[in-house]
Amino acid sequence: MNSEAKWFCRNCGFTYDFFKGYYYRCPKCGSPLNIRYDKSWNPRGSGLNRYSSMLPINSLKSIGEGSTPIVTREYDGLRLWFKLEYLNPSGSFKDRGSSLAISHAYRLGYRRVLEDSSGNTGLSVSLYSCIYGLPATIIVPEYAPKGKKDLIRLFGAGIVEAPTRSDAARIALGMAEDPTTYYVAHTWNPLYPIAYKTIAYEAYEQGFHGDAVVVPIGSGGLTLGLYWGFKDLYDLGLIDNIPLFIGVQGVSSRPVYEKLYGMVNVQGSSELADGILVKEPPRLEEITAVFKETKGCIVLIDNNDIIYGLKKLIDYGFIVEPTSASIIRGIEKASELCPLNNLRDILVPLTGSGLKMIDLLVKLIRP
Amino acid sequence: MNSEAKWFCRNCGFTYDFFKGYYYRCPKCGSPLNIRYDKSWNPRGSGLNRYSSMLPINSLKSIGEGSTPIVTREYDGLRLWFKLEYLNPSGSFKDRGSSLAISHAYRLGYRRVLEDSSGNTGLSVSLYSCIYGLPATIIVPEYAPKGKKDLIRLFGAGIVEAPTRSDAARIALGMAEDPTTYYVAHTWNPLYPIAYKTIAYEAYEQGFHGDAVVVPIGSGGLTLGLYWGFKDLYDLGLIDNIPLFIGVQGVSSRPVYEKLYGMVNVQGSSELADGILVKEPPRLEEITAVFKETKGCIVLIDNNDIIYGLKKLIDYGFIVEPTSASIIRGIEKASELCPLNNLRDILVPLTGSGLKMIDLLVKLIRP
Repeated sequence: MNSEAKWFCRNCGFTYDFFKGYYYRCPKCGSPLNIRYDKSWNPRGSGLNRYSSMLPINSLKSIGEGSTPIVTREYDGLRLWFKLEYLNPSGSFKDRGSSLAISHAYRLGYRRVLEDSSGNTGLSVSLYSCIYGLPATIIVPEYAPKGKKDLIRLFGAGIVEAPTRSDAARIALGMAEDPTTYYVAHTWNPLYPIAYKTIAYEAYEQGFHGDAVVVPIGSGGLTLGLYWGFKDLYDLGLIDNIPLFIGVQGVSSRPVYEKLYGMVNVQGSSELADGILVKEPPRLEEITAVFKETKGCIVLIDNNDIIYGLKKLIDYGFIVEPTSASIIRGIEKASELCPLNNLRDILVPLTGSGLKMIDLLVKLIRP
Repeated sequence: MNSEAKWFCRNCGFTYDFFKGYYYRCPKCGSPLNIRYDKSWNPRGSGLNRYSSMLPINSLKSIGEGSTPIVTREYDGLRLWFKLEYLNPSGSFKDRGSSLAISHAYRLGYRRVLEDSSGNTGLSVSLYSCIYGLPATIIVPEYAPKGKKDLIRLFGAGIVEAPTRSDAARIALGMAEDPTTYYVAHTWNPLYPIAYKTIAYEAYEQGFHGDAVVVPIGSGGLTLGLYWGFKDLYDLGLIDNIPLFIGVQGVSSRPVYEKLYGMVNVQGSSELADGILVKEPPRLEEITAVFKETKGCIVLIDNNDIIYGLKKLIDYGFIVEPTSASIIRGIEKASELCPLNNLRDILVPLTGSGLKMIDLLVKLIRP
């Protein structure tokens, strides 16, 4: 809790009390908003609230999000630090963001929650809306896995299906005008990346003081959050340098890759990784800057790379979804682009659970 | 790690070096074996190995088992301490037991792993066998949920289907004679209840110093393990009394209930709770003694009670399987049998994840 917290627009300078109102984006210029607040390092307890003094708002009703295990494994001369984000309550790292965002909606007295999502955020938002007693509507692309859609219904949320991820966002915008509705908008809402900072804090406290981070890029919230988290640790003098960022995008949706390297013509499909099929991430500038500033790189992967990664991860005992599996070939391919030969310790968040899509995993791994 | 650890038979006095051989039951009299070893309280690190000094063996390859979150909620004047065991790596508390048992198999040089299971243990054993590179065969009853069987195959284990849970045990026994095969036999193997002691240790360190524990009873390993764990804490002087145990059995399979209260004639079915359909738990005597010694009780529940509990738990945000949901009506019914009116804090392990059976959950909760 941070009663002095303020909404802040990097583009036009707009500011507003964080606890007096909510804008999913800047009401003056339309840019993504950030939040300014005082931070101090005083970890206590467990879950996200362990880092209350580093966050603008507490999680009011924890259901076990955060404090995920870290597991190290040797891989090709590297030491991979797998952060098991798929062991969050609804099976993905999105629970960290939703726990803060729906707390915020609840505190501000909103009556309804609205979200557009490729699946995991929709499920996570429906879970947290349910425990706060707020009715939720989730707009999903038709191709979202059936298991995720079923779970959203299980938490009593309404579902609207849209042809594509972009259509889902467009439909949500149209419904967001009602002043009693909190439009979560996780690709805009800074509470999502702010919540993901806690992954960096936890990894640091679990012994990761390493050289690099590998991260699948959908809307880029995870990238930004991890970067902000490590930057906090650096600013506090707790770590000596911010890790290099290796981003992974699919060939079917590569906006950050093209922003960094220019347009490319790539064959193939990466649609198995439904979590990173985001065409127009609102924070494209900020996300791209992370890879530039840390002298990192972005690699492209396709469906074959995903299946390859899934098999490796299952052999390690990690039951993850295809999107999460993209990171294995991501690491292998990155060595061609970044100076990985000097690296040893890499943080690898495993973002989503495979338990929601067992049929698909079996079809891909043991057809 | 405890190099002085010994197998020990409470019935005939048989003893043997724990690190020199493995017997799934006493080779002299056929009774279930226990393990004798020195204990000291010195928690350090995370996961099961946090309690190395309280266990006969370490987990050699952790994949994030243990250190599960605890979440408190008010319920009918009680404070329930939900221990989220479904957030273990394969989605159930069985991972604690398998991590120790397969470590043991690996250290002793066994070449193959065999297990009979209603589903969760089979999956858990197949996962740990996979990470240790040991080929596994799992005998499951036909009615085990498809998702669990698919996951077992995903980890490369062979599956044999048997008509019932008892048939599965019988078939496994026939295959267990090969001296290179470690027959896990979780209903006999004391490493399973010993591993579950860590749930009690964690709950204690997470602030639970309460009056009662509610536990679904299948083979009874969880009951025994929690009891042994709290007894350790009591013997160490860390807690003032051992909590009262409330057991939950289904009307379709109620051996512990009948051992305690005598034969009963009950209508209905509890087959939705596939995890507690165990007809002949080998440790029946030891399990029954827990309820006597703690002045607890056992209640019977049926499918309607399970659906009722599932709905309540989903409203709390817990995505659990039907077996886990049996505890809600268990608590309500217990107040008729035990003196619950003096109780306030109850530990409630939520044993298994609902993500493995989303279709079934949807059918039961939102048909």
